[in-house]
Amino acid sequence: MSYSLEQLGRHVQGAVHGDSQFNVLKLRSLEQATAQDIAFVNGEKYLEQALASKAGVLIVSKDLVEKLQTQFQLIVVESPYLAFAQLTHLFADTVEFSNIAKTAVIHPTAQLGKNVRIGDYAVIGENVQIGSNSYIYPHVHIGKNVSIGHSAWIESHVSIFAEATIGDQVRIHANTVIGSEGFGFAPYQGRWHRIAQLGRVRIGHQVRIGSNSSIDRGALDDTVIDDGVIIDNLVQVAHNVQIGQHTAIAAKTAIAGSTKIGAHCIIGGASAIAGHLTIADQVQLTGMSMVTKSIHQAGTYSSGTGLLESAAWRKAVVGFRQLSEMPINKLLKQIKVLTARIDQLESHQTVEQANERPNPNDDKKNKL
Amino acid sequence: MSYSLEQLGRHVQGAVHGDSQFNVLKLRSLEQATAQDIAFVNGEKYLEQALASKAGVLIVSKDLVEKLQTQFQLIVVESPYLAFAQLTHLFADTVEFSNIAKTAVIHPTAQLGKNVRIGDYAVIGENVQIGSNSYIYPHVHIGKNVSIGHSAWIESHVSIFAEATIGDQVRIHANTVIGSEGFGFAPYQGRWHRIAQLGRVRIGHQVRIGSNSSIDRGALDDTVIDDGVIIDNLVQVAHNVQIGQHTAIAAKTAIAGSTKIGAHCIIGGASAIAGHLTIADQVQLTGMSMVTKSIHQAGTYSSGTGLLESAAWRKAVVGFRQLSEMPINKLLKQIKVLTARIDQLESHQTVEQANERPNPNDDKKNKL
Amino acid sequence: MSYSLEQLGRHVQGAVHGDSQFNVLKLRSLEQATAQDIAFVNGEKYLEQALASKAGVLIVSKDLVEKLQTQFQLIVVESPYLAFAQLTHLFADTVEFSNIAKTAVIHPTAQLGKNVRIGDYAVIGENVQIGSNSYIYPHVHIGKNVSIGHSAWIESHVSIFAEATIGDQVRIHANTVIGSEGFGFAPYQGRWHRIAQLGRVRIGHQVRIGSNSSIDRGALDDTVIDDGVIIDNLVQVAHNVQIGQHTAIAAKTAIAGSTKIGAHCIIGGASAIAGHLTIADQVQLTGMSMVTKSIHQAGTYSSGTGLLESAAWRKAVVGFRQLSEMPINKLLKQIKVLTARIDQLESHQTVEQANERPNPNDDKKNKL
Repeated sequence: MSYSLEQLGRHVQGAVHGDSQFNVLKLRSLEQATAQDIAFVNGEKYLEQALASKAGVLIVSKDLVEKLQTQFQLIVVESPYLAFAQLTHLFADTVEFSNIAKTAVIHPTAQLGKNVRIGDYAVIGENVQIGSNSYIYPHVHIGKNVSIGHSAWIESHVSIFAEATIGDQVRIHANTVIGSEGFGFAPYQGRWHRIAQLGRVRIGHQVRIGSNSSIDRGALDDTVIDDGVIIDNLVQVAHNVQIGQHTAIAAKTAIAGSTKIGAHCIIGGASAIAGHLTIADQVQLTGMSMVTKSIHQAGTYSSGTGLLESAAWRKAVVGFRQLSEMPINKLLKQIKVLTARIDQLESHQTVEQANERPNPNDDKKNKL
Repeated sequence: MSYSLEQLGRHVQGAVHGDSQFNVLKLRSLEQATAQDIAFVNGEKYLEQALASKAGVLIVSKDLVEKLQTQFQLIVVESPYLAFAQLTHLFADTVEFSNIAKTAVIHPTAQLGKNVRIGDYAVIGENVQIGSNSYIYPHVHIGKNVSIGHSAWIESHVSIFAEATIGDQVRIHANTVIGSEGFGFAPYQGRWHRIAQLGRVRIGHQVRIGSNSSIDRGALDDTVIDDGVIIDNLVQVAHNVQIGQHTAIAAKTAIAGSTKIGAHCIIGGASAIAGHLTIADQVQLTGMSMVTKSIHQAGTYSSGTGLLESAAWRKAVVGFRQLSEMPINKLLKQIKVLTARIDQLESHQTVEQANERPNPNDDKKNKL
Repeated sequence: MSYSLEQLGRHVQGAVHGDSQFNVLKLRSLEQATAQDIAFVNGEKYLEQALASKAGVLIVSKDLVEKLQTQFQLIVVESPYLAFAQLTHLFADTVEFSNIAKTAVIHPTAQLGKNVRIGDYAVIGENVQIGSNSYIYPHVHIGKNVSIGHSAWIESHVSIFAEATIGDQVRIHANTVIGSEGFGFAPYQGRWHRIAQLGRVRIGHQVRIGSNSSIDRGALDDTVIDDGVIIDNLVQVAHNVQIGQHTAIAAKTAIAGSTKIGAHCIIGGASAIAGHLTIADQVQLTGMSMVTKSIHQAGTYSSGTGLLESAAWRKAVVGFRQLSEMPINKLLKQIKVLTARIDQLESHQTVEQANERPNPNDDKKNKL
């Protein structure tokens, strides 16, 4: 797994400055790279770090060439970060299983494309379809009527139910559940009456779902994740949620039932979004956001309080509680009234002073 | 899987308006239903949507019959939502495995009731008891001495340890862990000394636990989940927690050790409840609540801040921090003192004015 | 599994008061213990509970001996909590599988130490190393080149990838994923370009990781968890995070990428820590803390608001929003200005009054 500088340059469509036959062993960070390694410079702000690096080759943008070319061999590209992303694939692990394990239990009606690889003890149900070049890891369970596109990557202990349809080049990481039952119960006379969930999960192409996440099936209609969506670990996607194209959802976020999230959103980690809301396209939420109303405007939104030393925090919490009885605006109004009354007093005093004698101390600089 | 209108009416104890032999193919939402389908109308507020639906049959309450009977066949019930819940069971998927898989590893001392079904590669330990008509999915691991009642539903990749006792008609969804070790460590000289957990998990009847959840065993005494409790996905229930009957806990909630939650509570998603607290019956928490004290009164509680545009939010956070040094009540007190001083000044001025001349501008409307 | 009082005393290096041959059946809580059981008294504040206990033996510190010795047999130790932790190990369950299951799939190049036990259907990859006396539960998947030290405990449905190195006496609870892929994507022209993760996970000795947690592999460098760290359930540790020795992380915490957490920290449950931060040693966070900046000082920190009845909370949230337009300090400044103006008015009035007549009502007690 080593590449010539020429090969790497071609892979990222970059211009090579240096010995095209130079042999690159590893892709590493600026700090860790040594003379046989390649590293990338993610913009001007990493210039100092780059100059201190022991890397043999750097991936850079045009504007940094002059500053780095005497010291390093270079691959010059438009977006070094994108080029780095592309190169990681060359240096990634290969998968250790290369065919269909004898211990896999595959229903005779299942249809597997060319070059599908299935790990030990995987269980593949009735009428399942799996496209070509897909990897199914050990211990995966795929229930009946699920269909998966080509070049999929389904890691160990993933469970897929609910006749889910999954597109091409989808990656689902370990221990995630697709199509678990939505949390639907009709309350009646103090008890919860289960609503069997009848909808499916529909996942588009090039979707990525992290480990230990749960994507519930819809109640009647489907839960839908559009093309290019990326989801991190430990994320909850409840029944009938819809997530638009190329939206990114960071770890530990929860999205409650029937909420629609637009395209190209970025949801910060540990956020919670209530049910039955609509979030516009291009919305960004910072980490741990609490969303209780629909968001109709693109933009960046936040919630929560800053972190304080606990002693100060306890006092601020008291203040927050007091806000419920005396909002800021009411305080402001009281201050306005007082100000008006003082204005009046002062104008009266000024009249009196004018009547009596000049007062050189009547300084109005202090006024609001 | 199709039913006559008469069959459906009987199943929900409803009165049928229409052709009792009419053949219903699917249960769908008002929007998606077509002429062969049944949908339900969840109260007056869905009337408009109902009138626009293409459904062949609607489930309605009495008060809507007049408005809908000319256009639709009807099933008239007391609670359409409950009737809908009951009907979902008729239209639900059947399970794809119908006996005990040859690949299941079942300890010879395990006792299985009638019609128990066990999926491929499940592992059932010593002295395990499983009641009749229970389904154990592929890859489930049930450790020694666990007992499970009848009509249970244990999905793929569930792990059950700690001699857990589980009641009848319990559903545990995929990749959940019952009886994982409680987080108990004695700090001593800068290190954490593990407290092996000796308690069990006791789960009542008709309990539902979602996917990717963790229910820890007790330290010495047991962790207890009472009858009829429903728990969503990715929920943490720590050691020695007790949860009262028919309480509902939404996704991504965390309940710390030894906390007791009453009956008929509803805990909103992504809430966090500290340890060693007591929560009364009938408490409702809105989503993302942070509970650090016991709640002794039934009612609805919340915490957190609203969502703001990030620029405004940053300023509000500064304000929150300032509350720690200057709580609202202290501000109010200052305003009161100023008000008293102005009162005094004005009363003096009034006396003076009375002494001097009448002032028609002395308007007190502005006063607080 | 019963022990003499003498055996128990020796195990915790304590002084025995009572019949050294007394047979102890169980270790239980003060409330549940009966005449054949041992319980522990965790300090003076449990004295009343201790006096009411039916336990046969109590573990106590020196200062409580006098108050309890007439009623109970005692084991006297420096730290009863530590002694309790040590005793739990004597009373803990034994593991039910005692060798290498025939159904385990073990790559011929894997190296297993003495007395390694491997459960049914575990899958152990190429070049995996597992130290002596380690337990690998059923359905575990350990990918190629992973190394695990001696006396490890890896529970059911754990997935380990990314050539992770794991130290001695490490416990990883059920359904946890070690070495899942970090959430790294290069945004380019509205799409997310996957950065294949090339780093590993390095876990020290005596580390404990709970159930359903995700520890991602590093992007280029490694994710590192130092010796003695304890992590609870449903925790997210993103790529390139570093966690210092003996730090404790409670359930449902999320730590974003590249953040470094110091040694001997205690992170409360459901906390979220943003990426690329540095947290000093000895930092404690209370539950549900939101950390968006580095913490350079040891100490205890918090965030969030208190829990309020929802009606009051809604008003407080309005107040919080108003803080973004009118911070407390600005209000304070306005009040200061008003105070100065009133001071001025009063001093003028006092001069006038002195000129005119004495005023016995001129009480300044009310002033700020």
